[in-house]
Amino acid sequence: MQIGMIGLGRMGANMVQRLTKNGHECVVYDLKADAVKAAIKPGVTGASSLEDLVSKLSKPRAVWLMVPAAVVDADLARLAPLLDAGDIIIDGGNSYYRDDIRRGAELAAQKIHYLDVGTSGGVAGLERGYCLMIGGEKEVVAHLSPIFAALAPGIGAAPPMAGRNKPGSTAEQGYLHCGPQGAGHFVKMVHNGIEYGLMGAYAEGLNVLRNANVGKQKHDTDAETTPLRDPECYQYDLDLAEITEVWRRGSVITSWLLDLTAQELLTDPQLENFAGRVSDSGEGRWTINAAIDEAVPVPVLSAALFQRFSSRGNADFGDKVLSAMRHGFGGHVEKTAPLKKDS
Amino acid sequence: MQIGMIGLGRMGANMVQRLTKNGHECVVYDLKADAVKAAIKPGVTGASSLEDLVSKLSKPRAVWLMVPAAVVDADLARLAPLLDAGDIIIDGGNSYYRDDIRRGAELAAQKIHYLDVGTSGGVAGLERGYCLMIGGEKEVVAHLSPIFAALAPGIGAAPPMAGRNKPGSTAEQGYLHCGPQGAGHFVKMVHNGIEYGLMGAYAEGLNVLRNANVGKQKHDTDAETTPLRDPECYQYDLDLAEITEVWRRGSVITSWLLDLTAQELLTDPQLENFAGRVSDSGEGRWTINAAIDEAVPVPVLSAALFQRFSSRGNADFGDKVLSAMRHGFGGHVEKTAPLKKDS
Amino acid sequence: MQIGMIGLGRMGANMVQRLTKNGHECVVYDLKADAVKAAIKPGVTGASSLEDLVSKLSKPRAVWLMVPAAVVDADLARLAPLLDAGDIIIDGGNSYYRDDIRRGAELAAQKIHYLDVGTSGGVAGLERGYCLMIGGEKEVVAHLSPIFAALAPGIGAAPPMAGRNKPGSTAEQGYLHCGPQGAGHFVKMVHNGIEYGLMGAYAEGLNVLRNANVGKQKHDTDAETTPLRDPECYQYDLDLAEITEVWRRGSVITSWLLDLTAQELLTDPQLENFAGRVSDSGEGRWTINAAIDEAVPVPVLSAALFQRFSSRGNADFGDKVLSAMRHGFGGHVEKTAPLKKDS
Amino acid sequence: MQIGMIGLGRMGANMVQRLTKNGHECVVYDLKADAVKAAIKPGVTGASSLEDLVSKLSKPRAVWLMVPAAVVDADLARLAPLLDAGDIIIDGGNSYYRDDIRRGAELAAQKIHYLDVGTSGGVAGLERGYCLMIGGEKEVVAHLSPIFAALAPGIGAAPPMAGRNKPGSTAEQGYLHCGPQGAGHFVKMVHNGIEYGLMGAYAEGLNVLRNANVGKQKHDTDAETTPLRDPECYQYDLDLAEITEVWRRGSVITSWLLDLTAQELLTDPQLENFAGRVSDSGEGRWTINAAIDEAVPVPVLSAALFQRFSSRGNADFGDKVLSAMRHGFGGHVEKTAPLKKDS
Repeated sequence: MQIGMIGLGRMGANMVQRLTKNGHECVVYDLKADAVKAAIKPGVTGASSLEDLVSKLSKPRAVWLMVPAAVVDADLARLAPLLDAGDIIIDGGNSYYRDDIRRGAELAAQKIHYLDVGTSGGVAGLERGYCLMIGGEKEVVAHLSPIFAALAPGIGAAPPMAGRNKPGSTAEQGYLHCGPQGAGHFVKMVHNGIEYGLMGAYAEGLNVLRNANVGKQKHDTDAETTPLRDPECYQYDLDLAEITEVWRRGSVITSWLLDLTAQELLTDPQLENFAGRVSDSGEGRWTINAAIDEAVPVPVLSAALFQRFSSRGNADFGDKVLSAMRHGFGGHVEKTAPLKKDS
Repeated sequence: MQIGMIGLGRMGANMVQRLTKNGHECVVYDLKADAVKAAIKPGVTGASSLEDLVSKLSKPRAVWLMVPAAVVDADLARLAPLLDAGDIIIDGGNSYYRDDIRRGAELAAQKIHYLDVGTSGGVAGLERGYCLMIGGEKEVVAHLSPIFAALAPGIGAAPPMAGRNKPGSTAEQGYLHCGPQGAGHFVKMVHNGIEYGLMGAYAEGLNVLRNANVGKQKHDTDAETTPLRDPECYQYDLDLAEITEVWRRGSVITSWLLDLTAQELLTDPQLENFAGRVSDSGEGRWTINAAIDEAVPVPVLSAALFQRFSSRGNADFGDKVLSAMRHGFGGHVEKTAPLKKDS
Repeated sequence: MQIGMIGLGRMGANMVQRLTKNGHECVVYDLKADAVKAAIKPGVTGASSLEDLVSKLSKPRAVWLMVPAAVVDADLARLAPLLDAGDIIIDGGNSYYRDDIRRGAELAAQKIHYLDVGTSGGVAGLERGYCLMIGGEKEVVAHLSPIFAALAPGIGAAPPMAGRNKPGSTAEQGYLHCGPQGAGHFVKMVHNGIEYGLMGAYAEGLNVLRNANVGKQKHDTDAETTPLRDPECYQYDLDLAEITEVWRRGSVITSWLLDLTAQELLTDPQLENFAGRVSDSGEGRWTINAAIDEAVPVPVLSAALFQRFSSRGNADFGDKVLSAMRHGFGGHVEKTAPLKKDS
Repeated sequence: MQIGMIGLGRMGANMVQRLTKNGHECVVYDLKADAVKAAIKPGVTGASSLEDLVSKLSKPRAVWLMVPAAVVDADLARLAPLLDAGDIIIDGGNSYYRDDIRRGAELAAQKIHYLDVGTSGGVAGLERGYCLMIGGEKEVVAHLSPIFAALAPGIGAAPPMAGRNKPGSTAEQGYLHCGPQGAGHFVKMVHNGIEYGLMGAYAEGLNVLRNANVGKQKHDTDAETTPLRDPECYQYDLDLAEITEVWRRGSVITSWLLDLTAQELLTDPQLENFAGRVSDSGEGRWTINAAIDEAVPVPVLSAALFQRFSSRGNADFGDKVLSAMRHGFGGHVEKTAPLKKDS
């Protein structure tokens, strides 16, 4: 099957490789001509412009956008006029699902089909395959199923589920038509919200393990410091790389995120390569917004998001308010710290 | 190798099976004679009392306790006097690590060795193997390594870690000597604390997905109800069983807990088998206590624990305080609800 | 000064009383003719329709809306065509500040001025005065300052602030021009977000006090129940009504909300008048949304909001997911409970 | 009445002043001879040692300890042997209530009475009076009631509660016998736990207000930064000093903590005097521990505590784990920041 791919970053370039490896034909375009050049190989045709890309696709055309969420609208504005009724646009990036609803309606007026595809898998997706969460018209999803099947990990990627007998479903292949427009990115949004929570759980637990030797440390004994009542219970120097490795086998908390964590800790046991400023790319925020609209409590997911904000210093003013109040009622003066870390 | 097993519940009985399957010899005891009887087979010798069990073990004896944390001390009080210097007791249950420190010291006075072994794997451990987190004396751990190796999943249970080269380590086998007495249960405690957080993340996310059709529902329009501003954005009827299945392949949030969740949702899509009263068995609480002693922030893990408390109705009085305050300042009268669920 | 008041509910009717007591003249309207009738007295003129109300006001007219947020747009659509250039509309309810921005622009096209006024004080405002947070054009705010001063508590309502010397500011009077359109409701929104957090803090603390006798209670001793390690430390039967009363004098946590809580506990020590289903009226949600847009961490405020959602049963499905997972990995069966409360 | 006071820090010295102003006689001691010297005036007798202090008190002696929690046990060890049966020791500091239970039992063996008195009021207590939460024997509390009444704010410090008619209760005076030994510090502990939550609520809300102009700021447009969708809704430059001042009158969130906050913001609008490293002195931690033992959910109070830990950099390692995971699955590289603050 033939598909156009716009955007040859980490994700797009890998997806082109996986598609061609599975026998599909790609016409590719990127703002950076070098990226196009690098992608060309048997089964991959380069395009020098959107017009060129469109002209090289046979109808009904299918064009996959794999670009930052912030530029999707601009790309659509340039791309849509070049297409014909019956053509298909797929947004495989991290768009907000509400944008999908709007875009789908706008493109429908031009009789262009629009699918939103939440794509999970990261840089490992090339080998591991991509988990695809798809929103849009059923027939269009069916039409493109060879593409989705090629990108997805396939049934062998996980043990079969006991008692499962849904022959018509593609979920076991690793791709799923979740519902009408926006449903794909809605499911991907919540997927990422969950991801934040999972990551926060591991991060906090590892931090507790790392400080299991706090009883060995010297502590200030002034009125501003809570004394540790049982220092003899915190004498453990734990090896986080070994612990995450052992957890990978047989424990209840085995996961791919744990595998990645063990890998990073193996290479860099103190995580000195990182400063701990954690970005967030929107889905976590939107998950909380959706939960609030639905009146669904999400204390775990929101705690994980807010910790990321804090990691970037965004709680600092609030912290100053606390110190100001303590100064107000107790005359407390802040403790200074050459290093920020204490207990 | 020969080992005594006290406690033939779900965990203990399975562990005996796994040990004998791997060529070890077990002498087993349980308060329930039926449980002992059921366990007897080639390689497994039944015992009618602690005395009988001790008499059937050769020195240095190794006795594994797999009993509820609440009865460990009572069992030790009866068992220890029957043992000799150089014998070994292993507590494989979910003891609080501080009890290990105390018990280790008490038993050392009798020259009995004591290991604490955090055991993860649940009912699946029989097939999947158990992840073992071990605290105690190095030599004693080494002595029992054949037992640990038999119980653990083994290296094949997870893909090898790129760049790993620690020949002396057993972490890749699925068991690990974490440190001195208490270290095993400390690591297991945090493991379970993480588990709570992971579970909370999936639970909250699935709840958000399930309510993605809230825009289709009728809403009260009184002053006590927040109107949904964009009902057109919440029109999705999502199939949670299918979504958890598709996530199992290629997504960032693949995990064993996700596998289990997909299995449960396949069998019981609305989870009607469950009322949502969630127990907690101590480790989550102790993890938060340790974090507080260490001054390590654990917003995700604590949110998960507190949600369990709430699920059992323990927030009810606090909720009444909120309603009372609202009555006080705004004359608000509570809304009644035939069903508790609303939005 | 003359003002029109639309909406004679708890808030509007009281405000009319406070305005006339301070020498202002009110023309009042409500959908319920009885409410209009009840409000008429010296200084208060009733109106039988919006047209009637508008006709009884002298130009430039000032019309104050004190209606549920959900009907403001409908009221504006009927009211605005009856007004003339230079007239003023004040929205004193709990509108979302983004609606103010939109409405302000729409009305500006008709040369009608629009102020958004966040109004705090509840049913006590009649005697205590209302705290007013105002957004809109500076000159219009200045023009209406006699009205605001009459509604506000006045400088005597709180001790003067040491070192304060801002003669031009009205903040000490209890009303404040916060900024352009929307600023009043933005500040009121966050005010309510803080209110949720404060309320949650008291509610949780009182719940901890109430359960200080948990050591006296019988506890199950099965594997699904965490044993209480130190029952002798939880033997206190505390009198919450007395404790909240004593805190009202000299403690760091004195507040008006505490006064109200003490009052409710005095009347109903077990809060049996309440079921604990806690409504939320939007501002708490919008505060979290704003925080997320700003990337400001709000773990306390969001925890308070989510607890309200939980109090209405909205965590139930998530709780079922947790029980399902526990069933999956440990074969755990939920404990049943005739009463929901346990520990 | 006569009382001995040990510890003349901020709290103890002020309490001596308040006691003598109300006609009581104090014998005072502090490790710092200067502090003793400074306290001497009519009604105040200095002591040069514990022995000297004890010798100057008439029986039954009453000795009030106002020293850091960490040194109470050492002081008791030196003081108790100097006292006689029937004498009274009062611990007015911030002891852990479990220490009270132990100390009470130890001193009872010597027939010395022990009261634990949670004392709230801070540096303002001298003028405002102290809120006293008392644990211990009923008769001993009654015997010392003149002392408590002198320290407490008195009935005039708050408006009377409608319908209150408890003539025998002292709660309206500002002091309360809460229950047996430990009850006073238990109630004070939860008081401080609530205090943390209240402070967190204000701090977070003010942070949201402060960033209401985030739409005016330049934002990076890379894949690591979530774009702000509606910058036009975040154009407010809000004056926090004015807003906290206006809230002091008539709003639902009036409180003493708000008064203090307004005062600090008046003096230092950007809170430049503070770095935002917030200490915690134990009671907040113990409140969470108690809640966990009781299985009472405290998401608000714990969020407030954990934010303090984060403010001291104690989340840093966890944040690095998050960055490491993001590197693992997405190849994400952390953004650097010359300033920590961003959005």
